[in-house]
Amino acid sequence: MTDGLWDEILAANAAYAERFPYAGMEPLPGRRLAVVTCMDARIDPLQVFGLRVGDAKILRNAGGRASTDAIRSLAVAVHVLGVRRIALAQHTRCGMASRTAEEFQQLVGEATGADASFVDFMAIGPDQERCVRDDVARLRESPLLPESVDVAGFLYDVDDGRLRRLC
Amino acid sequence: MTDGLWDEILAANAAYAERFPYAGMEPLPGRRLAVVTCMDARIDPLQVFGLRVGDAKILRNAGGRASTDAIRSLAVAVHVLGVRRIALAQHTRCGMASRTAEEFQQLVGEATGADASFVDFMAIGPDQERCVRDDVARLRESPLLPESVDVAGFLYDVDDGRLRRLC
Repeated sequence: MTDGLWDEILAANAAYAERFPYAGMEPLPGRRLAVVTCMDARIDPLQVFGLRVGDAKILRNAGGRASTDAIRSLAVAVHVLGVRRIALAQHTRCGMASRTAEEFQQLVGEATGADASFVDFMAIGPDQERCVRDDVARLRESPLLPESVDVAGFLYDVDDGRLRRLC
Repeated sequence: MTDGLWDEILAANAAYAERFPYAGMEPLPGRRLAVVTCMDARIDPLQVFGLRVGDAKILRNAGGRASTDAIRSLAVAVHVLGVRRIALAQHTRCGMASRTAEEFQQLVGEATGADASFVDFMAIGPDQERCVRDDVARLRESPLLPESVDVAGFLYDVDDGRLRRLC
């Protein structure tokens, strides 16, 4: 697939580097915050949360889930990089809430010919507010994250830009 | 911890929602692209890659690794949401390249009192270019992602803003 997208990206990046304003910035996030949210293309976490480059660690996966990989990443963020607060934000009209785990397994299995029955797709299920609360509880109870870390759960509406705190 | 950060975020978000420009945007990423990169606070993937909201799925974890969770997310991105290209970008001065896996286990274990020896922290190791190539290979060879998906590997320099293609 050589439609020039990589070249386009490198050209846009060269222009960005010409006016790069963040030289020498240190890795500790200024607001000691980590945000866990969905990979969804409609979400720009910095804009949604009113943050600037350098303010926060941003973690993203399908659904905005407190996955094992998110917890690995958050353990590093907290114990190495000074994070003291975690915001987990899922969103409305999420693809991960549109199908069951079994439907994802079947769909990916049929598309690839591979056995996808062993994959936990972390489908959100019909009650998304409950999913946010469960994921926040998973972070609060994780033995890899200290109790002193402040964890909050949000639902983001992709149609009006509004963030609602759930827990 | 009640220092008002959540209130500040909700106030900033309310201002964002007042001028929200993305109502009704559909979830299929306009450029059929997914970007996998690090959670690092210094990286704004949209600016680095010259993208706009709606163009790409953005996945982020500690290191910008092709983790099992990233592959779960990418399988959904490809088979449900039309993604045809994946860019994996790690970056210079990454915290995940500063320690060995064993050092992360020890550090988190000592900080929490928990047994962290079972956690794979996915440390990048001393040869980061090799890590990028290995992660790209993992995506290219994943049975959950079709061979037709175009995967490219990059290293991003957090000190000059430049993205370099490695593979």
